[in-house]
Amino acid sequence: MTRPFISLLTDFGLRDPSPAICRGVMARIAPEAIVVDLSHEVRKYAIRDGALLLWCALPYLPVGVHVAVVDPGVGTERRPIAIRAGRGDVLVGPDNGLLVPALERIGGLAEARLLEDRGLFLEPVSSSFHGRDIFSPVGAHLAAGTPFEAVGPALDPATVVALQLPPVRVGDGRLETGVVYVDTFGNVKLSGLVSDLTAALGALGPGDPLALEIGAPRTPDARTVELPWATTFGGRPAGEPLVYEDSYGRICIAVNQGDAGRQLALGEDVPVVVRRA
Amino acid sequence: MTRPFISLLTDFGLRDPSPAICRGVMARIAPEAIVVDLSHEVRKYAIRDGALLLWCALPYLPVGVHVAVVDPGVGTERRPIAIRAGRGDVLVGPDNGLLVPALERIGGLAEARLLEDRGLFLEPVSSSFHGRDIFSPVGAHLAAGTPFEAVGPALDPATVVALQLPPVRVGDGRLETGVVYVDTFGNVKLSGLVSDLTAALGALGPGDPLALEIGAPRTPDARTVELPWATTFGGRPAGEPLVYEDSYGRICIAVNQGDAGRQLALGEDVPVVVRRA
Amino acid sequence: MTRPFISLLTDFGLRDPSPAICRGVMARIAPEAIVVDLSHEVRKYAIRDGALLLWCALPYLPVGVHVAVVDPGVGTERRPIAIRAGRGDVLVGPDNGLLVPALERIGGLAEARLLEDRGLFLEPVSSSFHGRDIFSPVGAHLAAGTPFEAVGPALDPATVVALQLPPVRVGDGRLETGVVYVDTFGNVKLSGLVSDLTAALGALGPGDPLALEIGAPRTPDARTVELPWATTFGGRPAGEPLVYEDSYGRICIAVNQGDAGRQLALGEDVPVVVRRA
Repeated sequence: MTRPFISLLTDFGLRDPSPAICRGVMARIAPEAIVVDLSHEVRKYAIRDGALLLWCALPYLPVGVHVAVVDPGVGTERRPIAIRAGRGDVLVGPDNGLLVPALERIGGLAEARLLEDRGLFLEPVSSSFHGRDIFSPVGAHLAAGTPFEAVGPALDPATVVALQLPPVRVGDGRLETGVVYVDTFGNVKLSGLVSDLTAALGALGPGDPLALEIGAPRTPDARTVELPWATTFGGRPAGEPLVYEDSYGRICIAVNQGDAGRQLALGEDVPVVVRRA
Repeated sequence: MTRPFISLLTDFGLRDPSPAICRGVMARIAPEAIVVDLSHEVRKYAIRDGALLLWCALPYLPVGVHVAVVDPGVGTERRPIAIRAGRGDVLVGPDNGLLVPALERIGGLAEARLLEDRGLFLEPVSSSFHGRDIFSPVGAHLAAGTPFEAVGPALDPATVVALQLPPVRVGDGRLETGVVYVDTFGNVKLSGLVSDLTAALGALGPGDPLALEIGAPRTPDARTVELPWATTFGGRPAGEPLVYEDSYGRICIAVNQGDAGRQLALGEDVPVVVRRA
Repeated sequence: MTRPFISLLTDFGLRDPSPAICRGVMARIAPEAIVVDLSHEVRKYAIRDGALLLWCALPYLPVGVHVAVVDPGVGTERRPIAIRAGRGDVLVGPDNGLLVPALERIGGLAEARLLEDRGLFLEPVSSSFHGRDIFSPVGAHLAAGTPFEAVGPALDPATVVALQLPPVRVGDGRLETGVVYVDTFGNVKLSGLVSDLTAALGALGPGDPLALEIGAPRTPDARTVELPWATTFGGRPAGEPLVYEDSYGRICIAVNQGDAGRQLALGEDVPVVVRRA
């Protein structure tokens, strides 16, 4: 008798009514569900941002249905899909890479299906708001008990669109990575995990000095900064930068009680090489 | 045994505690209700914006109570009212036009009443936060089963304040309209519907060239741009503008994966005439 | 059989997944709870802002568990605590002053405890996200029925960290106070309450002229403005400033349908002296 759980992530923005409309559509189909807004302020059209937020969040959410819509290709040939994960969750959204990275954290891809049963859609289906007309109603029907197989035919998992993240290269004494996300605190997340960093540099202790080569080499923006490895923000004075393992295992550049993105002029997709100083 | 449904729309802003206070007041009165935040980021004091969001959203929400507060006249003589719609919903808010446009989409105005029974209010009623003291508690009492008639005396529907939208004039080969809303994607919504446009210009096909006369004639900002009619964003290259029918039937100017409001310098209340190019 | 109530206040920001992760952690432990987001847009690291929002909101929320996380000292020696209030609520968060001011509005501090039972935490506990790993799970366990005593040992209330608000000095004919919060409307809240103001100036009537000495004396920013006391915004023409009692009993400077913070260049921590003009 547990209540079904639905999470909802979009780039629709909280000023507009679109997130509430999705929730309204869901409430008509699955009124007993617990619905949690994962985020509606994903940067517009930023599939990778949405994918990273799902990667962070899904392991901490109850097993359930996760509807995600960052969908610059709405109305084109891109497929609407659902993916069942090893943990038992079902992810619903566009086949543009958005849903894929999170799978590694909830048991991997068990089965993918095309959303094809129009009886689960909200008709008439518009060309520009599949969040309302396809993804939310299908997600709610799944939460209310519709079997996964009913949404449409099985897809070859190899055909599900993957997502390119900035490459991580573990070298001998250097890790080549790049910025993938700057959060609302200004904390700068790299594509590399701390397990990659220790594979490249060996074990790290609090205060170990690191050199970060920031920007593409031989460009005007290229520069090297020296930052200590730290295990907590509080290990540094307020306003001082540091490198630490964020709460998801990712390498992160931060400023204690400050904004590292602004202070170090670091934005998404800037290349970063990390070595010992 | 279905759970009652309440939606809540305000211009209170999500940083401040006001939306949560309204939800807390409701939770004390109607703990079983499903409450969905429609938006709390309506532009401050922008009654028309709030009215348009309600117009978009209400048809997709469950039949229920809809509390809406964009209320520049709080503390003045403007009346607090509730309106029962043909579909069975009850809208609760200030009598300033906010609640009216949505009615045409949910069965029209069936009955209007003045909020007068102070036993349904949260006392003492402040002069500046009727969302907390009047509209939320009355809405929650209605959701919890208080009959509509109990809120106060019936009002002559002709006395309910209407909302002036920019006029739409269907001419022979030209539609005179104007911008009513720019959403968070930068999509520019006109006051005219696509049914108005085809009444003026005849049936439209993908790629049909349209001329948009933007701005008041003979002013420095007046200009004419040529844009194609499109049925999907994806029918245009990224960065290219288009005119399409949005998912509510409204004429909308957009840029595929871009921000039309910024790119075309279009803001609320700019006059627009549409004709074939 | 009432559903438990949880409120959640953070400075995590609504773009990032952190608020939803906290809610997901709670939903796994206390799926029957009503959870209301109090705010996630508290200014980063602004303990006082968070404390004021709790002070405003908690009296209007159902008796329940209130999890609050504005936590610049996360990962340092600052203690994680829970406080039981006289009304029956439990407040959960860092021991940095955040939880304290609200207590005076819900029955005062009845008992404080250290969060020490790791069986109530989400392991492994990170060094940077105690909202996810400590405060949300402990709060949800309390909402689900874990007794308050189980969280850890009792603390001497005198050791709970207090919060310094700008001092309020009630003089003979003058009130020395300062700005504590500017809300999203631009309404400027002072540290003094209207009861302090009337203690200093005597009873006030609508239209009584007040002189506000703004800024530190003998600095370039020091200035005096004359504003009327008003009981409603609507008592002044649109665009005109006024001083009024906000809906929490606080002295507030506003502009009818405008932004007083911007119009009068008033920000947090600016000293203000109020006297009759």
